[in-house]
Amino acid sequence: MKPILYSYWHSSCSWRVRTALHWKNIPYETRAVNLLKPESGQHSAEYLAINPTAHVPTLFIDGKNIIESIAILHYLEETRPLPALLPQDAYERAKVREIVEIIASGIQPLPNRKVQKRVEHDKRLEWVQHWVNSGFRALEEKLYTTAGKYCVGDEVSMADCCLLPQVFNARNSQVDMRQYPIISRIVSELEMIPAFIAAHPHNQPDCPTELSGK
Amino acid sequence: MKPILYSYWHSSCSWRVRTALHWKNIPYETRAVNLLKPESGQHSAEYLAINPTAHVPTLFIDGKNIIESIAILHYLEETRPLPALLPQDAYERAKVREIVEIIASGIQPLPNRKVQKRVEHDKRLEWVQHWVNSGFRALEEKLYTTAGKYCVGDEVSMADCCLLPQVFNARNSQVDMRQYPIISRIVSELEMIPAFIAAHPHNQPDCPTELSGK
Repeated sequence: MKPILYSYWHSSCSWRVRTALHWKNIPYETRAVNLLKPESGQHSAEYLAINPTAHVPTLFIDGKNIIESIAILHYLEETRPLPALLPQDAYERAKVREIVEIIASGIQPLPNRKVQKRVEHDKRLEWVQHWVNSGFRALEEKLYTTAGKYCVGDEVSMADCCLLPQVFNARNSQVDMRQYPIISRIVSELEMIPAFIAAHPHNQPDCPTELSGK
Repeated sequence: MKPILYSYWHSSCSWRVRTALHWKNIPYETRAVNLLKPESGQHSAEYLAINPTAHVPTLFIDGKNIIESIAILHYLEETRPLPALLPQDAYERAKVREIVEIIASGIQPLPNRKVQKRVEHDKRLEWVQHWVNSGFRALEEKLYTTAGKYCVGDEVSMADCCLLPQVFNARNSQVDMRQYPIISRIVSELEMIPAFIAAHPHNQPDCPTELSGK
């Protein structure tokens, strides 16, 4: 039985996990959770029984549901270690996890849809841009000390799985990415990798057809 | 040479790491970063050179600076595995990391001081309580399926290192903890453990004397 990924095409946290599944060549089925229709989507009784946070993604794998994207990435790494998404050396692993956390705890939670709803309507774009720029400024500095071809050296890692989706969102919010040359250079590498392309929002079964171009 | 922890007494992320250091019996020195005086604290040139996010904590250990609290917890676990803060089994580890992430990405980033500053003054308490309650409701549900004496079964883990500081902050924001009997029961256990006591804000060298009671 294939793993089942509860996912929303536009969700950056879902994209992180989709990338890891493709990177590790793990076939899976997508079960779409429509975040724009919470009653039948993330707040349905059926989904809340699986994931009490009402967030996506959830991965059903090895007979169990696992929630929270970074927890899922680590589970995949520990049960299906190759191809790897973490280096072997403890300090190199720390570098990957530092970047993961800068994105997953320092950036993603603040501009997201759920939080925007509690900010005055005409201040939402400014809110999003403020937090993304403040996070990306720190991230750009950090990457100056860690990056090679990718976020940490020349091997793809969990950090890259987190970076591309965040930049996709930033572009959608008209963040001027010319301020971040290292981030931009890494992203242009990632956008050529098959696992990242397969995991792209526009290539998901629940993406609206006018965007998916199918 | 002892590790150096750049820390602020009241910071929940610093508390997570202080607990792990005490739990693993790693002697360390505290270097206080005063978040209330950003010019000489987290935004000083000296600190930004160490940690470009301007967040605490940073741990200088094994000749390197490591930033981001969960990355630090993992580095300590991988280089000083005993006493452990992660179970051996991959799925049990996933349970710990799910809870870590619910707190570290789902709760902590939203009510924190930096974000509050961008919310209208008279709406700040409501903002904090909204995000803490919304996160704790999901966490309470999750813990119903994972908890024993502590967050995951009967062994202290990284999840517990994250839980107690978040509850301390919640109490300071007058969140009614009677809504969360499982969280409250676990916290009452953690409050009796020497490593958690030693790491408590009131026992830090930079805690104001009127609170430290020294």
